[in-house]
Amino acid sequence: MKPILVFQTDFTYKEGAVSSMYGVVKSVDRELEIMDGTHELPQYDSWSASYRLYQSLPFWPEGTIYVSVVDPGVGTSRKSCVALTETGHYVVTPDNGTLTHVKKYMGIKAVRQIDESVNRLRGKGTEEVAIFHGRDVYGYTAARLASGIIDFSGVGPEYPVDEIVMHDILEPEISDGLVKGIFEIDDPNFGNLWTNIPTPEFKAAGFGYGEDALMTIEHDGEKVFEDTVSFQPSFGFVEKGTVLSYNNELMRVAVAVSQGSFASEYGIGYGPEWTVTFRKA
Amino acid sequence: MKPILVFQTDFTYKEGAVSSMYGVVKSVDRELEIMDGTHELPQYDSWSASYRLYQSLPFWPEGTIYVSVVDPGVGTSRKSCVALTETGHYVVTPDNGTLTHVKKYMGIKAVRQIDESVNRLRGKGTEEVAIFHGRDVYGYTAARLASGIIDFSGVGPEYPVDEIVMHDILEPEISDGLVKGIFEIDDPNFGNLWTNIPTPEFKAAGFGYGEDALMTIEHDGEKVFEDTVSFQPSFGFVEKGTVLSYNNELMRVAVAVSQGSFASEYGIGYGPEWTVTFRKA
Amino acid sequence: MKPILVFQTDFTYKEGAVSSMYGVVKSVDRELEIMDGTHELPQYDSWSASYRLYQSLPFWPEGTIYVSVVDPGVGTSRKSCVALTETGHYVVTPDNGTLTHVKKYMGIKAVRQIDESVNRLRGKGTEEVAIFHGRDVYGYTAARLASGIIDFSGVGPEYPVDEIVMHDILEPEISDGLVKGIFEIDDPNFGNLWTNIPTPEFKAAGFGYGEDALMTIEHDGEKVFEDTVSFQPSFGFVEKGTVLSYNNELMRVAVAVSQGSFASEYGIGYGPEWTVTFRKA
Repeated sequence: MKPILVFQTDFTYKEGAVSSMYGVVKSVDRELEIMDGTHELPQYDSWSASYRLYQSLPFWPEGTIYVSVVDPGVGTSRKSCVALTETGHYVVTPDNGTLTHVKKYMGIKAVRQIDESVNRLRGKGTEEVAIFHGRDVYGYTAARLASGIIDFSGVGPEYPVDEIVMHDILEPEISDGLVKGIFEIDDPNFGNLWTNIPTPEFKAAGFGYGEDALMTIEHDGEKVFEDTVSFQPSFGFVEKGTVLSYNNELMRVAVAVSQGSFASEYGIGYGPEWTVTFRKA
Repeated sequence: MKPILVFQTDFTYKEGAVSSMYGVVKSVDRELEIMDGTHELPQYDSWSASYRLYQSLPFWPEGTIYVSVVDPGVGTSRKSCVALTETGHYVVTPDNGTLTHVKKYMGIKAVRQIDESVNRLRGKGTEEVAIFHGRDVYGYTAARLASGIIDFSGVGPEYPVDEIVMHDILEPEISDGLVKGIFEIDDPNFGNLWTNIPTPEFKAAGFGYGEDALMTIEHDGEKVFEDTVSFQPSFGFVEKGTVLSYNNELMRVAVAVSQGSFASEYGIGYGPEWTVTFRKA
Repeated sequence: MKPILVFQTDFTYKEGAVSSMYGVVKSVDRELEIMDGTHELPQYDSWSASYRLYQSLPFWPEGTIYVSVVDPGVGTSRKSCVALTETGHYVVTPDNGTLTHVKKYMGIKAVRQIDESVNRLRGKGTEEVAIFHGRDVYGYTAARLASGIIDFSGVGPEYPVDEIVMHDILEPEISDGLVKGIFEIDDPNFGNLWTNIPTPEFKAAGFGYGEDALMTIEHDGEKVFEDTVSFQPSFGFVEKGTVLSYNNELMRVAVAVSQGSFASEYGIGYGPEWTVTFRKA
């Protein structure tokens, strides 16, 4: 079977953009299978695009082609590329930081710049359009690759993996009984916040399931939350409405309110300016 | 062909959870077909999950496997199960009330508890994760069942259908010219409210299409709406902006504002505390 | 392969309506492929439905069956129809203005009224339901057509293409150095507004990429915005936060704020009462 195409964008489904992009894919090859990753990424936010790839891509079969279009620089000089990961997945994306987590955690074997003289939709009267590479370049190129019309080398010229545009990923500071990290992303639906602290390292530093720790959250160096919270395997181990830390789906320490929203109830966000420190009780 | 997998959750598409769950399904068997039921169920609300199954499942082909994940008790002692309905559909879900309507209106022939020693995702480094059974247990088990890797008995041990966790379903009081029920669910998009009154019984009690009735709505025993409204086959039989009662898609009496939102314009909700009484004019 | 079915509605995914509609399609023919166009069209807005068809349909393969359900008149006397375009696409829809752009820009070869004595879901106890033609008529008929159970003539009686219900489409006034049009639709996600001015005509009138023009926006004849803005191929050619005009994905002139929302930042909407005039600087 041909590879699956998975799409993530910041387009939403509110109008016809996703449909026209998918129509292009199906016009390249009627047999191709398209799946929604998400179309609700925060606008222009290539950090979130990168994180969601890291969260999702490893669970898809080898060979899957993931198209990620968060593209504030569309039509300018930023590169359009296809990356082949060490795990055998493909990512089709503007090279604008979206590959950060994939490169760090999955590894990138090779990356090629899309040659738009070949790999660009034509014949629909939209050749002059410069604002919709999701439809005219990324979807189209991904479809040609999935269909076998081109192979990886047919994407365009290879360039050094070292030249891929990267965001900074911060590492936590871990010592016995004291762990300091940041919130690096949220779960926007449930209002949970995910730290950059790997659960195995947290546990090795002395924080066990069912045990309490003093959790201090600072925003730009100013304390915004401090309380004793327990570390749990899941939400239901504390009363509804209680703050807890827990092991999230990517084996990182995260913070939630059981059946509530930690982010909105306490006004907490994410990014390098949001630090979180755990001290053993 | 292999059975279709339909998913409904309260995850939303805002981040990467649905994608990683679907990736697991496709990694079990590349051929499986996945359909979205909805990922916008109200958070933690197993009543809504149960109602939406009742609304949707009967329209899918026999053999369809419906995965429903509204799971506030994830990682605790609530059972994970697969139910086989009298109609030949499967439902994969936490046993937390989600099977209420399916059991009452479609019938459940047998139910089995998922044996996580067999039917749980492994090899992705997430074996310790306790908060995402949609990905690690429900999606994975449903995929194995759809693929034929396991049959129904391979899910795990059977348990008595009588032990399935049920919500209370209230029945309306129906007499000639006087019908009293509750609003048991809404249409959150259009702002319509659906009662528990079957249209055939409503008509048998003397309420005919095009006829007026006095409609009284109480919240916790306090009157919040009273007016004469007509009962109609559809919205367009009254002027835009007019309140009407009508026969809804499940052959129940419902209340709407034509091209408006009854729920938001009049502040009406649903649940056992919201009663609605119709008296023949 | 059988034709693809694409669906656009104003139902949203908040409850079980889309799922039950798709279940009917799959019950007609398990093999049929269903794609989401969008389910987030503005409620009751057949103008938007028409525009989104125009935006999307031309990018889908010939033979594709597009089901469009924005249907405030459901259950009343408005016709249900299937239109065959000059391009070989089908549209299944209430005949309520939804075919406006398709007829004008793609051309309609023939249109047939759906004969509900044949093409209507039966056997689910919902024969009396008059409010959900998406499930009971449009989805069902589209599935039968895609599956080959009926051909186009099996839809029902043909009627004159001239009788199709049409919205008015306004044309821009174009002269050398002065172009006046309207905003006819938005991009609700990014807050861009799209005019009815074709880019080739705009350029022929003397407005070139990188050049400035005085842009005046009036609402019901009252000036609500006036400033010099440049015309650009894409957003990234101006600083973040700057207003620009640009060539949109359908080769029309549109207005945006780079990485911002023109519609919400300046309170601009669309419709015949929103005029926009460009004068050469």
